[in-house]
Amino acid sequence: MSLQHIAVIDLGSNTARIVVIGGVLGHAFRLEDEIREVVRLRQGMTAGILAEASMARALFTLRLFKRFCDSYGVDQIIAAATSAVREARNGAYFVERVKRELGLSLRVLEGDREAYYATLGALNEVPIRHGYVVDIGGGSAQISQVVDRRFARGVSLPLGALALSERFVQGDVISAAERQALQTQIADQLDGVAWLQKGLLNGSSLVGLGGTIRNLAKMEAARSDYPLNTLHGFVLDRQSVNESIRLLADLPLAERCKLPGLNSDRADIILPGALVIHNIMERLGADQLTITINGLREGLFFEHFWGHLTYPVVADVRAFGVLNMARVYRYQKSHAVHVRFLAGRLFKQLSPLHGYTPAERELLDSSALLHDLGSVISYDDHHKHSQMLITNSGLPGFTPRETAIIALLTRFHRKGNPTIKEFGQLLAVDDRRLVEQMAAILRLAEYLERGRNANVDDVIVTWDADTLRLTLVADEYPAVELWDAERNALALMESAFGRRVVVESTAVPDIH
Amino acid sequence: MSLQHIAVIDLGSNTARIVVIGGVLGHAFRLEDEIREVVRLRQGMTAGILAEASMARALFTLRLFKRFCDSYGVDQIIAAATSAVREARNGAYFVERVKRELGLSLRVLEGDREAYYATLGALNEVPIRHGYVVDIGGGSAQISQVVDRRFARGVSLPLGALALSERFVQGDVISAAERQALQTQIADQLDGVAWLQKGLLNGSSLVGLGGTIRNLAKMEAARSDYPLNTLHGFVLDRQSVNESIRLLADLPLAERCKLPGLNSDRADIILPGALVIHNIMERLGADQLTITINGLREGLFFEHFWGHLTYPVVADVRAFGVLNMARVYRYQKSHAVHVRFLAGRLFKQLSPLHGYTPAERELLDSSALLHDLGSVISYDDHHKHSQMLITNSGLPGFTPRETAIIALLTRFHRKGNPTIKEFGQLLAVDDRRLVEQMAAILRLAEYLERGRNANVDDVIVTWDADTLRLTLVADEYPAVELWDAERNALALMESAFGRRVVVESTAVPDIH
Repeated sequence: MSLQHIAVIDLGSNTARIVVIGGVLGHAFRLEDEIREVVRLRQGMTAGILAEASMARALFTLRLFKRFCDSYGVDQIIAAATSAVREARNGAYFVERVKRELGLSLRVLEGDREAYYATLGALNEVPIRHGYVVDIGGGSAQISQVVDRRFARGVSLPLGALALSERFVQGDVISAAERQALQTQIADQLDGVAWLQKGLLNGSSLVGLGGTIRNLAKMEAARSDYPLNTLHGFVLDRQSVNESIRLLADLPLAERCKLPGLNSDRADIILPGALVIHNIMERLGADQLTITINGLREGLFFEHFWGHLTYPVVADVRAFGVLNMARVYRYQKSHAVHVRFLAGRLFKQLSPLHGYTPAERELLDSSALLHDLGSVISYDDHHKHSQMLITNSGLPGFTPRETAIIALLTRFHRKGNPTIKEFGQLLAVDDRRLVEQMAAILRLAEYLERGRNANVDDVIVTWDADTLRLTLVADEYPAVELWDAERNALALMESAFGRRVVVESTAVPDIH
Repeated sequence: MSLQHIAVIDLGSNTARIVVIGGVLGHAFRLEDEIREVVRLRQGMTAGILAEASMARALFTLRLFKRFCDSYGVDQIIAAATSAVREARNGAYFVERVKRELGLSLRVLEGDREAYYATLGALNEVPIRHGYVVDIGGGSAQISQVVDRRFARGVSLPLGALALSERFVQGDVISAAERQALQTQIADQLDGVAWLQKGLLNGSSLVGLGGTIRNLAKMEAARSDYPLNTLHGFVLDRQSVNESIRLLADLPLAERCKLPGLNSDRADIILPGALVIHNIMERLGADQLTITINGLREGLFFEHFWGHLTYPVVADVRAFGVLNMARVYRYQKSHAVHVRFLAGRLFKQLSPLHGYTPAERELLDSSALLHDLGSVISYDDHHKHSQMLITNSGLPGFTPRETAIIALLTRFHRKGNPTIKEFGQLLAVDDRRLVEQMAAILRLAEYLERGRNANVDDVIVTWDADTLRLTLVADEYPAVELWDAERNALALMESAFGRRVVVESTAVPDIH
């Protein structure tokens, strides 16, 4: 297992970006650096020819990216260009210059490959099985169909937010005629995609990515006082897209810039992209769209990261996301997996009392792996730091509600009286009981593994109307575990399960 | 350099505590675990004999601590007992039982040794050269004199907060007669310490430690809306001690428990401790007392950690504290030290313009070593995470104002317009200019080391009334550094130094 640094360069029509991702292939990864530069490669592209000045700007930026990679000492560079280079008649000449002058191999992605890599990015973040992935970029928009967690087909259409703005919107506020022309163009282009029609969605999901879509989500998050610091798993509904369109269409630019959540460098081009999204949602009869943060760059990265798989998509994004986070923050594996084991044993035996299902079990298991994460910051208050790290980074594949619950379980794994208030409407009233009962189980498992040496092999749970009895099976008399569980874990168990709780051991205390 | 886990056990008159500290001796350390248990060893100690029930409780707890160490796999256990065991006529018998039953060697600290170890803890946290260290515990209070950063002498007096409360205060609110008796006892005891007299303080410092003193500081912090999450370097003034005494003396227990910052399990015993502190401050003519978080346990730890020194006290607590924090959070050393070098070169050459001294240079140097700390949390927003980590952990030896400035410099090392508002009265109006100019220097140094490979060997600064010129000396043409500095660092330099800023390189650009 050796650490590698992979750079992914993405030369778009408007922006060039580089990310450096550090990781051990197939094991764990994290973002380590990022540079973004507005290049406007498409600018002055008349009659399908990249302008000399634009090419010079792009070469300048790519040279810097290449030098940055050299000095950073990255192990591999993956570089790709999209619609501007693809569509240019002198695109091949540009690629050859990049190769000759910089020694950098730039892959020009065909439209369906661009859709494919965006979909790879999405599939490695969102647990959809069947459905559609929409990626709205600057120059083009890609739409893909996913069948059984694989890219089935995809298309690139000239519906990028910047391209549409340049072509259809002249003034500060869009006119009725402009909006009509824009809608007609969007409808015409989408009509050409036979597999994107009403009724085809049934039961499958719609996923969105790219700056336009993320920014619509940020606007909705700002309007609704969203309590997480991440857009992982954020769901945008059609009504919210409508509301954003209304605000964007009515206000002059200066006012639009003040809209909460809207990035000022998108305020002038976001509306056409929002109209594309809205049309697609209507067309599919989709009420909701799930946001992904990943995109083309991550798709290119995952092709490398999952290179040993026959198809570079992780089977279980949730399980891997939890494991990746645990690994990135250097969790103490033997302790964490034993807490998960004991918590699972308690969950299973107590199921007649709590009535929860494998769905809740997954949240408990995840919180068990992540409970000590905050120790990376400091031992003091590490339970609070764990919550902060989870609500800050998010957990791929989990819904916002599930992420909040996992974060709360880590928060209350040592002490405190579980409350759910800070997450507002994200959690339902019933989730209070869930959090209390799961936190009680996690806390008990933590204290039964207080010596961090897996001394307690198992716990047997029996109860009657008044008393819940926990019998510990251990090789050595679990003195520390009995004592610390009694001091710190039983009160919450008693309140969570409405019984007096007794803990005992089958092993006999020895002298020492 | 091998990682060790050291457990320090401290059996006090009221409480038993264990801390596990992980670290590489002489290199870096951090707290890894902690357990605290109220044992009340002193309870029922009549005629100088530890009661059988009290010894049984202590043995029970120490057995658990020992088992915890065994299962945790600690490399060394340092265990000490203080006044209760020291003063008991059957103390030796108790120590022998601990040895026989638990295999644990318990050192019984003589009064002056208890004072010595508390002082070692303090000296490794606070940069005092000469002065006094006061440690108010449950059973006794230790007072030490420090000369030239060494423990000169110390004494243990029967002025512990719990012992005084038990002896002098009967009811809920202290009566005038009780208070008088208490004051007399305190004065009598302190009168016996010849070297603790008015006028002896001149120019030297008073440092306080122990739960009573920390809690007085917490009360003051709560009253004044203190903006740091740490008491490192907190200064308590006599007026604030007066105010706490007034509140504690006037209110019945139920009301006292509601006082902001006061721990409810100290509400009943804190007043006598506050009176001891007040008397000592008056006696020495000291207006201020600096808080330390370290104490006896840390002193015992440092004797081991600094075992290779002739005297186990670090020479420069500030420099080591910064380095320890950088090491604990796995800083990228080569990058951090090069940023510090370039920032130092800028600071020095720009000194005619900014006029700052070595004191401010130290803050800049420290922030350069710590600027990327937040990457341990995530690359995104790592500058904000750096600030959070510093204001959360504090920096030993720095004043609260200095800590806030270092945190702000890391916060603004990448982007943002420096403001100091969030630290309220901790910073003066003039500090706004300091933070802006130092942040401008740090940010420029960061972007001049953007490739993280020390490409820029030096920077030469010249200026006239209008223009500040930065000339980079480098082996290779510093393309990335020039470009990213121009995009991201020059604007703040221009506003901080009131000149147009130009950056250029002596090296000639090559083709690649």
